[in-house]
Amino acid sequence: MRIGILNSGGDCPGLNAVIHGVVGAADKLGWEVVGFTDGFEGMLPPARYQLLDVNNTMGIQKLGGTILGTTNKGNFGAKVGAGNVMEVPHEIVNSARKTFDALNLEGLVIIGGDGTLTTALQLCNMGWPVVGVPKTIDNDLHATARTFGFDSAVTSVVDGLDRLQTTAGSHGRVIVLEVMGRHAGWIALHGGIAGGANAILIPEIPFDMDVVCEAVNQREKDGNNFSLIVVAEGALPEGGEQSFIQTEGAASSEYRLGGIGARVAAEIEKRTGKETRSVTLGHLQRGGSPTAFDRILGTWFGVEAVKLIEKKDFGKMVSYQSASVGAVPIEDAVNQLRLVDPEGEEVNAARSVGICMGK
Amino acid sequence: MRIGILNSGGDCPGLNAVIHGVVGAADKLGWEVVGFTDGFEGMLPPARYQLLDVNNTMGIQKLGGTILGTTNKGNFGAKVGAGNVMEVPHEIVNSARKTFDALNLEGLVIIGGDGTLTTALQLCNMGWPVVGVPKTIDNDLHATARTFGFDSAVTSVVDGLDRLQTTAGSHGRVIVLEVMGRHAGWIALHGGIAGGANAILIPEIPFDMDVVCEAVNQREKDGNNFSLIVVAEGALPEGGEQSFIQTEGAASSEYRLGGIGARVAAEIEKRTGKETRSVTLGHLQRGGSPTAFDRILGTWFGVEAVKLIEKKDFGKMVSYQSASVGAVPIEDAVNQLRLVDPEGEEVNAARSVGICMGK
Amino acid sequence: MRIGILNSGGDCPGLNAVIHGVVGAADKLGWEVVGFTDGFEGMLPPARYQLLDVNNTMGIQKLGGTILGTTNKGNFGAKVGAGNVMEVPHEIVNSARKTFDALNLEGLVIIGGDGTLTTALQLCNMGWPVVGVPKTIDNDLHATARTFGFDSAVTSVVDGLDRLQTTAGSHGRVIVLEVMGRHAGWIALHGGIAGGANAILIPEIPFDMDVVCEAVNQREKDGNNFSLIVVAEGALPEGGEQSFIQTEGAASSEYRLGGIGARVAAEIEKRTGKETRSVTLGHLQRGGSPTAFDRILGTWFGVEAVKLIEKKDFGKMVSYQSASVGAVPIEDAVNQLRLVDPEGEEVNAARSVGICMGK
Amino acid sequence: MRIGILNSGGDCPGLNAVIHGVVGAADKLGWEVVGFTDGFEGMLPPARYQLLDVNNTMGIQKLGGTILGTTNKGNFGAKVGAGNVMEVPHEIVNSARKTFDALNLEGLVIIGGDGTLTTALQLCNMGWPVVGVPKTIDNDLHATARTFGFDSAVTSVVDGLDRLQTTAGSHGRVIVLEVMGRHAGWIALHGGIAGGANAILIPEIPFDMDVVCEAVNQREKDGNNFSLIVVAEGALPEGGEQSFIQTEGAASSEYRLGGIGARVAAEIEKRTGKETRSVTLGHLQRGGSPTAFDRILGTWFGVEAVKLIEKKDFGKMVSYQSASVGAVPIEDAVNQLRLVDPEGEEVNAARSVGICMGK
Repeated sequence: MRIGILNSGGDCPGLNAVIHGVVGAADKLGWEVVGFTDGFEGMLPPARYQLLDVNNTMGIQKLGGTILGTTNKGNFGAKVGAGNVMEVPHEIVNSARKTFDALNLEGLVIIGGDGTLTTALQLCNMGWPVVGVPKTIDNDLHATARTFGFDSAVTSVVDGLDRLQTTAGSHGRVIVLEVMGRHAGWIALHGGIAGGANAILIPEIPFDMDVVCEAVNQREKDGNNFSLIVVAEGALPEGGEQSFIQTEGAASSEYRLGGIGARVAAEIEKRTGKETRSVTLGHLQRGGSPTAFDRILGTWFGVEAVKLIEKKDFGKMVSYQSASVGAVPIEDAVNQLRLVDPEGEEVNAARSVGICMGK
Repeated sequence: MRIGILNSGGDCPGLNAVIHGVVGAADKLGWEVVGFTDGFEGMLPPARYQLLDVNNTMGIQKLGGTILGTTNKGNFGAKVGAGNVMEVPHEIVNSARKTFDALNLEGLVIIGGDGTLTTALQLCNMGWPVVGVPKTIDNDLHATARTFGFDSAVTSVVDGLDRLQTTAGSHGRVIVLEVMGRHAGWIALHGGIAGGANAILIPEIPFDMDVVCEAVNQREKDGNNFSLIVVAEGALPEGGEQSFIQTEGAASSEYRLGGIGARVAAEIEKRTGKETRSVTLGHLQRGGSPTAFDRILGTWFGVEAVKLIEKKDFGKMVSYQSASVGAVPIEDAVNQLRLVDPEGEEVNAARSVGICMGK
Repeated sequence: MRIGILNSGGDCPGLNAVIHGVVGAADKLGWEVVGFTDGFEGMLPPARYQLLDVNNTMGIQKLGGTILGTTNKGNFGAKVGAGNVMEVPHEIVNSARKTFDALNLEGLVIIGGDGTLTTALQLCNMGWPVVGVPKTIDNDLHATARTFGFDSAVTSVVDGLDRLQTTAGSHGRVIVLEVMGRHAGWIALHGGIAGGANAILIPEIPFDMDVVCEAVNQREKDGNNFSLIVVAEGALPEGGEQSFIQTEGAASSEYRLGGIGARVAAEIEKRTGKETRSVTLGHLQRGGSPTAFDRILGTWFGVEAVKLIEKKDFGKMVSYQSASVGAVPIEDAVNQLRLVDPEGEEVNAARSVGICMGK
Repeated sequence: MRIGILNSGGDCPGLNAVIHGVVGAADKLGWEVVGFTDGFEGMLPPARYQLLDVNNTMGIQKLGGTILGTTNKGNFGAKVGAGNVMEVPHEIVNSARKTFDALNLEGLVIIGGDGTLTTALQLCNMGWPVVGVPKTIDNDLHATARTFGFDSAVTSVVDGLDRLQTTAGSHGRVIVLEVMGRHAGWIALHGGIAGGANAILIPEIPFDMDVVCEAVNQREKDGNNFSLIVVAEGALPEGGEQSFIQTEGAASSEYRLGGIGARVAAEIEKRTGKETRSVTLGHLQRGGSPTAFDRILGTWFGVEAVKLIEKKDFGKMVSYQSASVGAVPIEDAVNQLRLVDPEGEEVNAARSVGICMGK
């Protein structure tokens, strides 16, 4: 038996861990794995792919990016089709299907975000044996409480804040850090809490510039001469884009038209009189080696995806079940340990990627 | 209103984040917080404590260890009491209670592991207004799926494996890394998966030395000249301690009586003939700055603990609800984003620790 | 005896190590140390300063920034004075001198870059007992082969390149990283060599856009689908600023007027047709905890500065003597070890900062 | 023209940077490079080697260890030969020479420490066209002020101390960290200064246990409840090994016969009554990705070694010229920048490893 795997859209720390998990779990079942190059593009003639096995994927879970390559857009982009529905044109899908059939694939793991998974759903509805793995560094995919890559991005934000704080404190400045999050503020929120931000501005809470400046001023009054502000790239002031006064002759030389971070910085400098700088993390937060958490989550997702194919449970996406903080009686908590289940899914994941568990 | 807080037992990355969360959330309610020094010991006369506020706890969430100090054992250790029950002697408890009352405390946050929480339960049963926060770097506390400090420890193991792999590969060696986990193998399991271990030995799965050596030999045959093995300190061979033959004249000069890692290394070298070394991570895995994940979880736990006191919901322990990986229909996952809830508990946690959320 | 210390200009990793070294070495001699706040500004009435001792400076060598605070400009800025010479106005200097005398200082350690040291020289010529410590993250100060902070900045660049490479490789992109270096390309050069850059553009070598694009294209032909390019902020094309054609309608949305990095990126995308992105490291490269190298160099500089004052060798600046790579006969190199000199300057530096050396 | 390269002895961060530099510089000259596997062993029949080129060595400067593999001992070990001189037996050398000649090599780069370089000298005296590159993580080779790998090892020690300090401080303990350095204390000295050690014990200064304990006690009196002590593995008390009383029934359970760190810890606990722990860094300090400094130094050494061969300047070893801290007149330091020399050896090194310098 042979299955295919591809990833599409922006790269994300943990992608290689998913591939590692899929290849390991498939190998245990005696399956072959075909990895398509550059996402769906690799399925179009001339097909570009490689056979993945435990030897040529050894250690990849530690690497950022994806060994398969990826594309953000391409021939597989949805277009207006029959009945005005946005979908991938059928001739493109059919062309890819020929590759799929020629390679005798019996399942396809598609790793991607909202757009990619919409395509996965279309393929599914056309009868493809597809399973999905959610991928979004922003952690904003519905139906999964956590996505791999998010923890790595948050860690980058924390690293950034650690670096900026020493400069902000030494110079008595405000520094604004613009981070990813076009629609959702998860990275800003988690990164800001962990990294000691004094204000966090996210798309879900349209901000009031007066409140932000008041927070800066209050810190000054309390004897803290600096402030760190994290702004998600999609954050906007109340009233929206147009309410954001173009600051003519902003004092800061770093004012730039492009980003919300620079604009917030310019407003703060103008209104509070405090020297303010802005930094855009940009691509620094999506690259690099994934954190331990993301490596494990990615591996686990990959192993689970193979299980779905094994059960022929197509049209499904693996998902991290919702986690939250609550309370339990103390007496339920003591005198009993939570041990590793020797037959449980985490030990299974380890065995799947070829780890000897001692027996 | 005024509440107390203490931590007891071994230090753990994220302890200061809990304290930070408690102080921030209490401050929002206009409460004072008394932090006892060196765990329960600080409650015994002469009482040793400090008033904690948002200024003197600013930025502590980034620091490892605990600003309060802690003790592993002490006067508060359980002893055989009335009816042969193990408990803290009543005169000790009563002495501490006088401090508690003299300070006009109306609640006490106790951060600790199994032993400490057992004491918390005893106090609770004696009418103290107590709430618990679980602390174990081993992640083996029942009733919480995750504890802070665990992610940091796993990250240390991954760092260690990254370092050891280059030496193992360059010299064609086996290297055994002994990590924490007296009863549970969580650290070894997660660290090993994320760090690329070739074998993981945990207390929950008594190991077979032949199986381990076979894994090493098989790698050699497959052209991989090195192996990395993670051993939890509590792992044992099948048949238990006595079955582990004392290796007289073990070839490795690094053989030491103390740890299971060194003994496993000596056996592997003897049986496979491959040069084998062992390293014990020891205290390196419980110190240092907590990961972003642990800072957030700790903060969240602290904020939640104050909520329990506010609701007078004593005798409870905050808990991270169980999380696992499953599957959902792809169609449920697409076309809808998972956004931050502006009134949700994570935004609440940020506001609690004094972060301006823009309005 | 009592001496003063101040730092002026931009913050730099290792500043606190210098302060640590000065305080430790002064303490050994029984001297007191007065640390002025915010550079020279702290010397003007009302004087702002703190007494520094081994207790309140303990551990600061690990922290980025400066515990004294600093200013980039201020009242101490040079102005055109008598005889058209740029210098600090005499009334400002005299005002500071009153503070100096009132505090009974017998020496002043001035840590700063070219501008600050020029002021130090002026003070010196006016009879102040001054010694200088060179500070420039750019490593471009004449008369010292190395400055603290440089190694930390280079390490930031390497971290950045590591992160960018995974994205560049996964997407088959060119990524341009703009780093510090207005006049000198040291950070770009060292960071680029260590981090695996494919092209490095520095102020000292006006670049030819055709050569850069040819390098990108050649890599493509050799099967390497991505390129990483490091650009010092002061790098310019041959022919200078005006020769850099304003790219109308540059394909990359990240094109910005401000930085050379964005402009180089836009040109590369236009000329090679390859998707190109740019990232500006900005303040991320001057903050954060200093590397081990910078902590040691800073400490050493601080200890040496006190020695100069002890010898009343004023008007001097401590300096790292030029180091380069050469060759020696192998026979001179073997059979003799290079040991630590128990009476040497490195052991002396350790003792100076209060480290017990075992006897 | 074709040259060979090998490394021998323990692995060391930066080895791959040397290889990278050699291959890049040789490629510029149109030379081929043969890399021998596992040190000298790869030269003995059946010869084991690979052709190295810029493609198969791309990016290796970032990796720890060595892509060539290495051995600590082997057939090339010196034995008592003619005239009671320790040397590699002539039949071994002759056997290797046949490989050398069969491959038409015209130069050999030998990377190694004292033992390996002694062999290099013997080969040299037998007429081999050999150049040496010094390799010792301990930084104790005569005739070079710095060796690659040392900065990485020091950084590991600093990381370790950062982790240990939080535990030491939280528990009020003494923690002893044993680091490498059998003969020389460089790693302990630099790591201890940068990492905030309170005592440093090195082979060059036989220590007095009373002095060490007094330092611990004095810190306690000064209100610092913990101490961090760095011990080089080769440190010994005054009077030598035998003067170190075997501590029967040492209070610490971590007492072990093996290391000096554990023995020092046991003595401190016994004499001061303070809870004391020890940790051995071991192999953690020689592996992992090299620091930026070591990558650059390694690259530079590699490029320089090729230059020596080009000049047929055999029997030489590349060397980092001695660097120390001194003083210069401030007026010599200001108003002139130290710029990168466009024709200098650092730009040359960059060009040699294939980096486009913009023209």
